[in-house]
Amino acid sequence: MLGNCLENVKKKTPLVHSITNYVTVNDVANVLLACGASPIMSDEPDDVADITTICGGLNINIGTLNKKSIEGMLIAGAKANELGHIVLLDPVGAGASKLRSDTAIKLINTIKFDVIRGNVSEIKTLALGCGTTKGVDADAADTVTEDNLEDMVAFAKSFSQKTKAIIAITGAIDLVADSKKCYIIRNGRPEMSKITGTGCQLSGLATAYVVANPDDKTKAVAAAVCVMGLAGEIGYANLKSGEGNATLRTRIIDAIFNMDADVLNKGAKYEVQ
Amino acid sequence: MLGNCLENVKKKTPLVHSITNYVTVNDVANVLLACGASPIMSDEPDDVADITTICGGLNINIGTLNKKSIEGMLIAGAKANELGHIVLLDPVGAGASKLRSDTAIKLINTIKFDVIRGNVSEIKTLALGCGTTKGVDADAADTVTEDNLEDMVAFAKSFSQKTKAIIAITGAIDLVADSKKCYIIRNGRPEMSKITGTGCQLSGLATAYVVANPDDKTKAVAAAVCVMGLAGEIGYANLKSGEGNATLRTRIIDAIFNMDADVLNKGAKYEVQ
Amino acid sequence: MLGNCLENVKKKTPLVHSITNYVTVNDVANVLLACGASPIMSDEPDDVADITTICGGLNINIGTLNKKSIEGMLIAGAKANELGHIVLLDPVGAGASKLRSDTAIKLINTIKFDVIRGNVSEIKTLALGCGTTKGVDADAADTVTEDNLEDMVAFAKSFSQKTKAIIAITGAIDLVADSKKCYIIRNGRPEMSKITGTGCQLSGLATAYVVANPDDKTKAVAAAVCVMGLAGEIGYANLKSGEGNATLRTRIIDAIFNMDADVLNKGAKYEVQ
Repeated sequence: MLGNCLENVKKKTPLVHSITNYVTVNDVANVLLACGASPIMSDEPDDVADITTICGGLNINIGTLNKKSIEGMLIAGAKANELGHIVLLDPVGAGASKLRSDTAIKLINTIKFDVIRGNVSEIKTLALGCGTTKGVDADAADTVTEDNLEDMVAFAKSFSQKTKAIIAITGAIDLVADSKKCYIIRNGRPEMSKITGTGCQLSGLATAYVVANPDDKTKAVAAAVCVMGLAGEIGYANLKSGEGNATLRTRIIDAIFNMDADVLNKGAKYEVQ
Repeated sequence: MLGNCLENVKKKTPLVHSITNYVTVNDVANVLLACGASPIMSDEPDDVADITTICGGLNINIGTLNKKSIEGMLIAGAKANELGHIVLLDPVGAGASKLRSDTAIKLINTIKFDVIRGNVSEIKTLALGCGTTKGVDADAADTVTEDNLEDMVAFAKSFSQKTKAIIAITGAIDLVADSKKCYIIRNGRPEMSKITGTGCQLSGLATAYVVANPDDKTKAVAAAVCVMGLAGEIGYANLKSGEGNATLRTRIIDAIFNMDADVLNKGAKYEVQ
Repeated sequence: MLGNCLENVKKKTPLVHSITNYVTVNDVANVLLACGASPIMSDEPDDVADITTICGGLNINIGTLNKKSIEGMLIAGAKANELGHIVLLDPVGAGASKLRSDTAIKLINTIKFDVIRGNVSEIKTLALGCGTTKGVDADAADTVTEDNLEDMVAFAKSFSQKTKAIIAITGAIDLVADSKKCYIIRNGRPEMSKITGTGCQLSGLATAYVVANPDDKTKAVAAAVCVMGLAGEIGYANLKSGEGNATLRTRIIDAIFNMDADVLNKGAKYEVQ
């Protein structure tokens, strides 16, 4: 049951340092507060080492990267590694530009990440860039479907083995894999893709969940993915006539704020392979 | 009828690259998703050429410009021009500081814009700065009214002729002009000025609309202006007792999310001169 | 009665220049619009002097400071002082990193602030850094309580005397002090700490209130603190089942939008010592 992961976050109120994009940063902060964690944002190279030191986890998101913030990511990551903190990478747009692909791969090569979370395209870009082409068909459509599920699970496990990070591939079906096992998660609503930042929010959540649940990090990430997806379902169910994506954005964070272990245990839809 | 412009956006889901201010960027992203388009934000000079290449349109907004992002605007604009992409300028605060006025004019002088959208003061600043003083009374109050409408329409057409861009001047009465014709639009609510970013959102919308409707760009911009104003009317009508500008902000994006061609055709209030 | 302070803001619509963090900047802009003021954001060193010149007040918040924005803060502050404008400091995270503490202290030592607003830890950090250790027990828990109220009031007055700024220490109990008197304010809800940026919003509000009420600045800050706390109470009372921190965020700004002098006069809970 994943509910105890949720309870641990509320009990331990982990402090999470996010170096994240300015598009969705407010939602990341509010979702961290909603789940019981506490947010701090800082990207200035001269500030990040001190800030990450007082936190339990570091959430690195390259959504609106710039040369200064990349420098901040590298410094914060090194410090977090030195202190044994949890570190997560959200490689937003890897594959969409050379700078994003190069930066994501440089981060993976210099920082030890506990979790890497992205969509299929982003994770495939990293896997190809790191030379892990096993199980990756560059021509495959970039979604996890029932048809390619077995291959994608194998790919996620293999990329986890290579990177020593938990790999979370999110989309219509979500995968959360370490080298041995993979959670296959079927929570969520397609309407979530009509809101900017549900992925960024999930990365913040997942960082908090792993910080608060260090004994089973893969389960903690899976719990965060279920929380986000289930919040999307609850938020969507609460929409009234005339409401749209902007209200859904608010209701998802509200649903996370109100979620307890019991709701999560009943609503989480996953299997482990 | 403007409804087919709306349908084309939903059908073609144009990808829009925004270099925009960090105050309202989240709303710009969510409004693009609401209308059926897809947003990407990037301002780092080393990232923007790649990002704009994969998009159909570029939305440049100088609301919180800095030296690096100005460099990014120039690089992205040059690349977008090279590729024949749609480019829009939102000269936020032109006239309020030397850097903003100079930057807006430099952008106009080096990038070919398809659309320039601002309030009267901003557009007048550009027109004066570019030497187009015809029809501009520097002493005139900075609003379009029924009294000065004829002069303002002439000014908008003339500035369009000079810049080869569609000129959108928004306020209580909105004007959308090319060198030959001008849409005079009377949608909207005064309460929209109590929310930050309705102008920035409109610039994002207009970029998407022109990308999806290349055969009649002026009509596409007019459609976007009507969509935004009508969404303000619908959002305002849906406000309940005790609700204010923050709820209105949400309801406007919701109204765009739910708007279809029929609602737009019935609600759009415009004439063409 | 504080209601006339609120009315003066609505009457005078002060223009406030904010150099603030990108996490909560949208809320700061919308809360300024809600209260009747008008927001402009700019942090580029080459832009800030012009922008602050056309405003009545300057709100400096170091929540996501970087080397460029620090330069902007110093330039804008010097210009605002030169013009006799109202200047407020929100030293977010002072004490959490060397850069933040050093920057806040450098700002205080080079700019004349009318108001300094922070939580107890931040204000204590400044007081210690400036050498004002009188009344500050470094071992004391970092909250204002009924038990340490007398000491904290004395500390706030003493730090105000040293800095010549009005000191606002906000938390469960809020203090607003000049060298002679201290408002002790008991508005607000604990749930406000589950939303990012209520402090940043208050700093924006307080700047606007002082600009519009120059004859009794301490009272103006106290009024802004009561407005924010009362809006939290009203927003919380309006929450329905299933709503959480994201909806509360919206309702607080709505409550400020709808608040009038009468509501404030009836709802404000304060005493002066």
